[in-house]
Amino acid sequence: MNLYDATVPIFTKYLKNVEAWFDKTVAYAEQKKFDPEVLTTARLAPDQHALVAQVQGACDQAKWTCAKLAGKDGPSHPDTEKTIAELRQRIRTVSDYLATFKREDFNGAEERKVSHQWMGGKALRGGDYLDYYALPNFHFHLTTAYSILRHNGVPLGKTDFIGGLPFAT
Amino acid sequence: MNLYDATVPIFTKYLKNVEAWFDKTVAYAEQKKFDPEVLTTARLAPDQHALVAQVQGACDQAKWTCAKLAGKDGPSHPDTEKTIAELRQRIRTVSDYLATFKREDFNGAEERKVSHQWMGGKALRGGDYLDYYALPNFHFHLTTAYSILRHNGVPLGKTDFIGGLPFAT
Repeated sequence: MNLYDATVPIFTKYLKNVEAWFDKTVAYAEQKKFDPEVLTTARLAPDQHALVAQVQGACDQAKWTCAKLAGKDGPSHPDTEKTIAELRQRIRTVSDYLATFKREDFNGAEERKVSHQWMGGKALRGGDYLDYYALPNFHFHLTTAYSILRHNGVPLGKTDFIGGLPFAT
Repeated sequence: MNLYDATVPIFTKYLKNVEAWFDKTVAYAEQKKFDPEVLTTARLAPDQHALVAQVQGACDQAKWTCAKLAGKDGPSHPDTEKTIAELRQRIRTVSDYLATFKREDFNGAEERKVSHQWMGGKALRGGDYLDYYALPNFHFHLTTAYSILRHNGVPLGKTDFIGGLPFAT
């Protein structure tokens, strides 16, 4: 058992799901004759982040989780995206970064101390960081992005959220 | 490393967070002079489940994940709730059930085959079931419940979603 399994393939798969949501978003916009880019600034509450920031947030959580659990410095990805095409590129950039990790990078990750600036000098055990914060926060941003599209009529369902599963039998 | 750590305390903590969201929901409704129960049937899209079903879905995913990973039959909890008080009781019933699990119940859970009726006779390795489906689906339902409240003006923020963290230092 190695935290690689709970991180790299999961983040990669779920970020790839977002690209499929974008495909459906663009097709829906063509059918309804609206500009799909209007959805990039859509949000569910006036003081909540819009779609662009939800996707950026999911990308960043994926990146920082793997970097910090492996004791590495993650690359900086400034939040400059404004279009669906740019969000797709952000996803691919992060996915390429995730693909550089090997299982052995996560040896001992469970006990490695993980800290972010927002923790104010405190730290979490790697395993706790993953379970209590990183996975919930990653899925929070993904679900919110999905809900923003869903709320605006994009025909998405739970299968689009979950995507394919690695059935053993 | 044992899958107990990634399941029982996480589900228990995140379901407890929902009770705090309900506290804020009731306080907000009192302040704005509306009946908080109207939010139980609120939804983000006409063909998406309402708040009640999102909370029931999170409760069920927590229950089935632990039961199936431990090779047990989970208790049946019919989806009869209609009020916030009944949803609180559902959360407590599930939390009490989660509290019956011990770490050793999860020995070997990673390799245990897990199947649900919706898998159509197929199965997932326990570890894959948790990472690819159960955790994302649990957080999906929680985030959607949160977003329904947020969309309706309940003053919730990311801190309410994440709750307390077990800082090591």
